[in-house]
Amino acid sequence: MSSYQPVKQWGRFELEFEGTPTDNPFIDSWIKCEFRLGNRKVEVDGFYDGGNTYKVRFMPDKVGEWAFFTISNDPNLDKIDGVFSCIKTTESKQGPVQVSETYHFEYADGTPFYPFGTTAYVWNHQGEELENKTIEALRNSPFNKIRMCVFPKHYDYNLLEPVRYPFEGSLKGGFDFTKFNVEFFERLEQQVQALESIGIEVDLILFHPYDRWGFSDMGKEVDFRYLKYIVARLSAYRNIWWSFANEYDLMKNKDMKDWDAFFKFVQEHDPSQHLRSIHNWHSLDLHYRSNAHWYDHRKPWVTHLSVQYHDMFFIEEWRNEYGKPVINDECRYEGDLNHGWGNITGEKMVEQFWEAFCRGGYATHGEAYLNESGIIWWSHGGELRGESPKRIQFLKEIIEEGPTKRLTPVYYQWDVAAASVGDEYILVYLGSSQPSFKTFPLPEGNQYQIELIDTWEMTIIKLEGLYTNESKIDLPSKPYLALRLIKK
Amino acid sequence: MSSYQPVKQWGRFELEFEGTPTDNPFIDSWIKCEFRLGNRKVEVDGFYDGGNTYKVRFMPDKVGEWAFFTISNDPNLDKIDGVFSCIKTTESKQGPVQVSETYHFEYADGTPFYPFGTTAYVWNHQGEELENKTIEALRNSPFNKIRMCVFPKHYDYNLLEPVRYPFEGSLKGGFDFTKFNVEFFERLEQQVQALESIGIEVDLILFHPYDRWGFSDMGKEVDFRYLKYIVARLSAYRNIWWSFANEYDLMKNKDMKDWDAFFKFVQEHDPSQHLRSIHNWHSLDLHYRSNAHWYDHRKPWVTHLSVQYHDMFFIEEWRNEYGKPVINDECRYEGDLNHGWGNITGEKMVEQFWEAFCRGGYATHGEAYLNESGIIWWSHGGELRGESPKRIQFLKEIIEEGPTKRLTPVYYQWDVAAASVGDEYILVYLGSSQPSFKTFPLPEGNQYQIELIDTWEMTIIKLEGLYTNESKIDLPSKPYLALRLIKK
Repeated sequence: MSSYQPVKQWGRFELEFEGTPTDNPFIDSWIKCEFRLGNRKVEVDGFYDGGNTYKVRFMPDKVGEWAFFTISNDPNLDKIDGVFSCIKTTESKQGPVQVSETYHFEYADGTPFYPFGTTAYVWNHQGEELENKTIEALRNSPFNKIRMCVFPKHYDYNLLEPVRYPFEGSLKGGFDFTKFNVEFFERLEQQVQALESIGIEVDLILFHPYDRWGFSDMGKEVDFRYLKYIVARLSAYRNIWWSFANEYDLMKNKDMKDWDAFFKFVQEHDPSQHLRSIHNWHSLDLHYRSNAHWYDHRKPWVTHLSVQYHDMFFIEEWRNEYGKPVINDECRYEGDLNHGWGNITGEKMVEQFWEAFCRGGYATHGEAYLNESGIIWWSHGGELRGESPKRIQFLKEIIEEGPTKRLTPVYYQWDVAAASVGDEYILVYLGSSQPSFKTFPLPEGNQYQIELIDTWEMTIIKLEGLYTNESKIDLPSKPYLALRLIKK
Repeated sequence: MSSYQPVKQWGRFELEFEGTPTDNPFIDSWIKCEFRLGNRKVEVDGFYDGGNTYKVRFMPDKVGEWAFFTISNDPNLDKIDGVFSCIKTTESKQGPVQVSETYHFEYADGTPFYPFGTTAYVWNHQGEELENKTIEALRNSPFNKIRMCVFPKHYDYNLLEPVRYPFEGSLKGGFDFTKFNVEFFERLEQQVQALESIGIEVDLILFHPYDRWGFSDMGKEVDFRYLKYIVARLSAYRNIWWSFANEYDLMKNKDMKDWDAFFKFVQEHDPSQHLRSIHNWHSLDLHYRSNAHWYDHRKPWVTHLSVQYHDMFFIEEWRNEYGKPVINDECRYEGDLNHGWGNITGEKMVEQFWEAFCRGGYATHGEAYLNESGIIWWSHGGELRGESPKRIQFLKEIIEEGPTKRLTPVYYQWDVAAASVGDEYILVYLGSSQPSFKTFPLPEGNQYQIELIDTWEMTIIKLEGLYTNESKIDLPSKPYLALRLIKK
């Protein structure tokens, strides 16, 4: 039995073996590996990685001495065993992000994670130069999560061919869905790794409808082989989230049972149990007329909501209805596109973030300004041009310096979004209203210090004195104000 | 049989008689009058007007020789007859406003009426000086309809006693609901008349919940006596609209059957068939969960919708659902109040109007800026301080110079509000989006001249050349733009 190098908790343990050559190792050979720590057993799928190489990747979540052995239909890969130590890490923000306190998130090590996401659907298909630029832009941005697709995208402003394809073949000659393009997945892993190194979670979109290559309609057998392969390759990466689709309800060749089956399959095969969600196209209004349109987020394999809706008003309702964290992952993007989803002002984009947080949920940024380069952040990445990111950074600092216990919505008035941590800390957002004063039903007997926050000008002014229940709070009659109340 | 002075078509014919004194003529005596023109018979209730005086008012809607006779339980008022001529008028905007082309309005003479309403709930309870100021402000405003209450209002910023009460008595001593205050109703008539003289329709709110005097809960017998009395006094005024309630669903002592009965009673007793509506408090969201919350506007006695909702998006749906004109009579007011219904920006108020018109409906203005005088337009009248009225005037001019055939919504894109008159004239509103260009599915084969309208700056710029289906229309990437397309 071989002994391997120690791995940090939530680090990546990787095994590499030489297998017996076959006609198509993606189909002909399989390998899995059982990892054990004490009484615990975890089964992990390995994958073929080109040449005669097979790999198994595993992210140990507990400190201790792990033992493993392989099982394979190839005698060269079968019954290989070994041990390795998983050692404690002293860094924070370790391990996959998971659900915390029902409606929120944290890293596996318990550090709170507040999603400040952005969207660049196919930044990873643009070639090294632009991809490096995107990484740099992200490094200097407030964002800590990105929505991005495995497959290339065919849509307005997205008509060029990607640098690589996930399968062997070409648009013209067709694709061999029995053969993954190893180089494509290696590059994807580098991108995931690069994002991890700058603290960004990868909300990885596994299927989407914007397709001219056939990847949206490969048939069930290929779909599941693809899921097994990508889970085997990527589940040991700390920062992966599985998003089963962007706008699943535009994919006419997949029905609700298919989506259920995909969720269950990944739930069974992902040893690290990364977050799982699915993203809708149809709007809430249709949803409320007929429940058929939204995926039922109560299903046990869904970890959180990844909603598309233009209005944050319903976050509390969704929390109550589904009992899970709510991320409004597509609430229109800052920009000047012809399309309605990509032409809101910076003011509105910032408003979406503040309102989401002050209703107990989360929002995701996107940017779609037309420009001569033809490179638009929402899809290609590149550079951020908008007015919202620095204000989102301002909000992020406010959230991060708040209590580590999480925000729960409180109802004051219908035009106000407010959330609190017990009665200690209250964050109130007044949106596009311009009141000259407000009063709030604050907890009886408490006294609060209040700071007036101009969310657009990014100023914080401490108000004189202390405030109690129904105190008159004078305000400057302008939009985009917030208040931070701290119990004294 | 006496012969009376001629009356213009839709003018007011008034009869005055001396009755026999009784203990309480409001209860003891009644008079009605049958008017005839050829085969047509119209029965009209008269009313007691103080002293020994009884009156009958009638608005003849047809030119010709009208005959009448009275019926009464008082021999002095019974079997009085006479004739008068109703003569043609050459002025326009005559007669009561009625529904036209299913979703719109016109005066009885066929002149289109486009509602540009405002709100000053109890301007009529403020005393002559302020009331005169209000009339002056209205005269210089774009508004041609006002929402106002018969009864005084008890609410924030409305804690003073009104100048007069509709019944004899006082707040302290209580009111005698068997005795109307004739002076109160005479003053109300003067106010209605003053509004008529400056071209303003009176959307007269008959009941409302904001009450400290008992007028919201007088019992059924008094409610119907009040309705009979006010209809007898006011139905011969051209510019009356009956609004059964402001926020009917906050009046806990009246149920759906009561509202039905009120509607039916006025429908039966109003010889001029003025417009009839009822105004909700509960929001659409509740409405769509449970239909119990909105009054069912399909009921035949409802002439149009008088909605409270903060979003214009659903106008087309309401048109389809109810098959009647839609006025969003309370879509939040420009101002800086602590209350959400009264603190939107001028920009948002103007946006509500444009969006309403470009979705085939109508909006109503209100203004609620706090100021040292304590006089707030929304309730007391006085002076207009906001930024929206002059932009509403700008829209009004655009609407009035458009075709007299009415706007019907057309669907282009979900973030666009558009309405057309056939394929000749199209008005498009882009709202708070900031697209740098748009394309629209214009009718095949047509060519359009396009004007770019900045609804906030109030500028109209003719774009070069002609545009066809899916032509690219370059835009200046800013919010609050509209387009006027005219077929060439």
